[in-house]
Amino acid sequence: MVEATVSPTPLLKDELDIVIPTIRNLDFLEMWRPFFQPYHLIIVQDGDPSKIIKVPEGFDYELYNRNDINRILGPRASCISFKDSACRCFGYMVSKKKYIYTIDDDCFVAKDPSGKDINALEQHIKNLLSPATPFFFNTLYDPYREGTDFVRGYPFSLREGVPTAVSHGLWLNIPDYDAPTQLVKPLERNNRYVDAVMSIPKGTLFPMCGMNLAFNRELIGPAMYFGLMGDGQPIGRYDDMWAGWCTKVICDHLGLGVKTGLPYIWHSKASNPFVNLKKEYKGIYWQEELIPFFQSVSIPKECTTVQKCYIELSKLVRAKLGKVDEYFIKLADAMVTWIEAWDELNSSGLKSKEVPNGPASAK
Amino acid sequence: MVEATVSPTPLLKDELDIVIPTIRNLDFLEMWRPFFQPYHLIIVQDGDPSKIIKVPEGFDYELYNRNDINRILGPRASCISFKDSACRCFGYMVSKKKYIYTIDDDCFVAKDPSGKDINALEQHIKNLLSPATPFFFNTLYDPYREGTDFVRGYPFSLREGVPTAVSHGLWLNIPDYDAPTQLVKPLERNNRYVDAVMSIPKGTLFPMCGMNLAFNRELIGPAMYFGLMGDGQPIGRYDDMWAGWCTKVICDHLGLGVKTGLPYIWHSKASNPFVNLKKEYKGIYWQEELIPFFQSVSIPKECTTVQKCYIELSKLVRAKLGKVDEYFIKLADAMVTWIEAWDELNSSGLKSKEVPNGPASAK
Repeated sequence: MVEATVSPTPLLKDELDIVIPTIRNLDFLEMWRPFFQPYHLIIVQDGDPSKIIKVPEGFDYELYNRNDINRILGPRASCISFKDSACRCFGYMVSKKKYIYTIDDDCFVAKDPSGKDINALEQHIKNLLSPATPFFFNTLYDPYREGTDFVRGYPFSLREGVPTAVSHGLWLNIPDYDAPTQLVKPLERNNRYVDAVMSIPKGTLFPMCGMNLAFNRELIGPAMYFGLMGDGQPIGRYDDMWAGWCTKVICDHLGLGVKTGLPYIWHSKASNPFVNLKKEYKGIYWQEELIPFFQSVSIPKECTTVQKCYIELSKLVRAKLGKVDEYFIKLADAMVTWIEAWDELNSSGLKSKEVPNGPASAK
Repeated sequence: MVEATVSPTPLLKDELDIVIPTIRNLDFLEMWRPFFQPYHLIIVQDGDPSKIIKVPEGFDYELYNRNDINRILGPRASCISFKDSACRCFGYMVSKKKYIYTIDDDCFVAKDPSGKDINALEQHIKNLLSPATPFFFNTLYDPYREGTDFVRGYPFSLREGVPTAVSHGLWLNIPDYDAPTQLVKPLERNNRYVDAVMSIPKGTLFPMCGMNLAFNRELIGPAMYFGLMGDGQPIGRYDDMWAGWCTKVICDHLGLGVKTGLPYIWHSKASNPFVNLKKEYKGIYWQEELIPFFQSVSIPKECTTVQKCYIELSKLVRAKLGKVDEYFIKLADAMVTWIEAWDELNSSGLKSKEVPNGPASAK
């Protein structure tokens, strides 16, 4: 008889990369060591490429700075933002794994109400590996979770669900507020642990935060472009929002699911609301036109791949949002460049280690 | 200077009726006494009208049995179900209050995770008195709740929200499962207290359970018809579902909100799954056609009152669902009768105590 192995292999150990954008030493990884160490990290260094980023010992990682990005993408590097955490999406592009988890370097391990450390990555993986139910709301939340199910009145034909493309996690302590709300409520902390995961219904948009986010790269990767933000751009802090709106309309079109809720991470420090206001203020008013735009987006049914959907979306952005501001013309161009770069790095001939002029790495 | 009063008046004491359908003595009210006693109860006695229903002392109530319903509605009494808790909607019709809370007599006071008794009614009132946000998803749930707000990326123009018409509460212990799920998982209990209230997005249907439900009668009352169920009908246990689908499409049309989540009640006892299966089985397959029907319902914009919307909906039910089964022709007729009866009892000339041939009452 074969005995069961005692220590289980971490879930998806060889199928998931952790992407971290940063400008500083990654001491925060110490706290995550029990959960992250088995996985491969892709670190995207923002800002001055001559600065040395220290990574705690024992982690398996590759690190890309701006010089690496420029070398790998050539002229197409223009689609990757600089001096903004939007640069993280370069990591999605160079990964060759099926799943991505991305986390900010000011996020720490949170505790559940019983005081136990939350393994955020494990919960994201559970979310991604179980189906989503975007076509009908289940009042007891995720019906696939242990101890729950579909309630009376839930159509049986919809109980298989659809593949989950995105798992959006939340934050205890510092909530993800915009600058005006930060200014008005400087002391507000999120202490409420809501023990739920749910599908965001089809046709409904949501504010996707990039702080604690996982997705299935094969299903939705090319839509996870974080836009043009930061250096030389008129806007910041809308990178993840932009990606979320694009991703959601494409998931809705392709019949894929988006979940939100658990897991929580501990968000340690509020960013400066005055700096944030400067980055956000155009976004705050543009957004009033962006939301109706995304709510009305209709992707032709011939678009059966994420790439085709995204190119179609870029055309709509140019045609409709170009009138709002010329920034959106530039963004539409960058969306096309992003897809070209994605396809170049992800063509079937290239394997994980064949990225041209590969990055700095360890272990 | 005027001193603040010490003991607060219960919220909406004179503006809310509690509607209870029953076939037995209402001993369950003892446990609810601290929370319900200040309010007026409308008891709808189902089944044999000669049976005496005992109500614990000290409660202010009116009680209607089948003879009362027949006397008050005359030939229109046909729209009120018999031998099914769907009869409860008669109570919504005879109430003259702005708000209704309805609860089943096998529901008891639940405890929150700290062990404190949950005042379900108070939470429902909070839900109804604060706006809903059906047009965009807020990842930290109800943004009007203390300690939370709209997150970054939530459009400012949508932060006023819309009036809340419905508050759908949940159940600890026995979950509201259909007969097949009850049969497959007889021992499953809901032990998960999810500390959240949320708006169900526009365009999304949900399974509305009538066990623990509150609504604004002025905003949505005439849509809260629980259909033809029970005695002489081919279907049962779809009364609240029917009301929920009709209510949701009308709320979406009129720009009203529906919330679900807190509060929990303690659901004490599972009903018999074999009996339930007999009641439900037609519903289970009809539902597969009902959901696409409700998902595609479009109410003309001339319909600016709930009554007009509901009559329009009855026409669509007749035209589209009449083909599924002749039952839906009968139901479409009953929907019209319901509105006629509602308007008769709720015409401006009639005041609370002027219901013709009024009911048995106490206190």
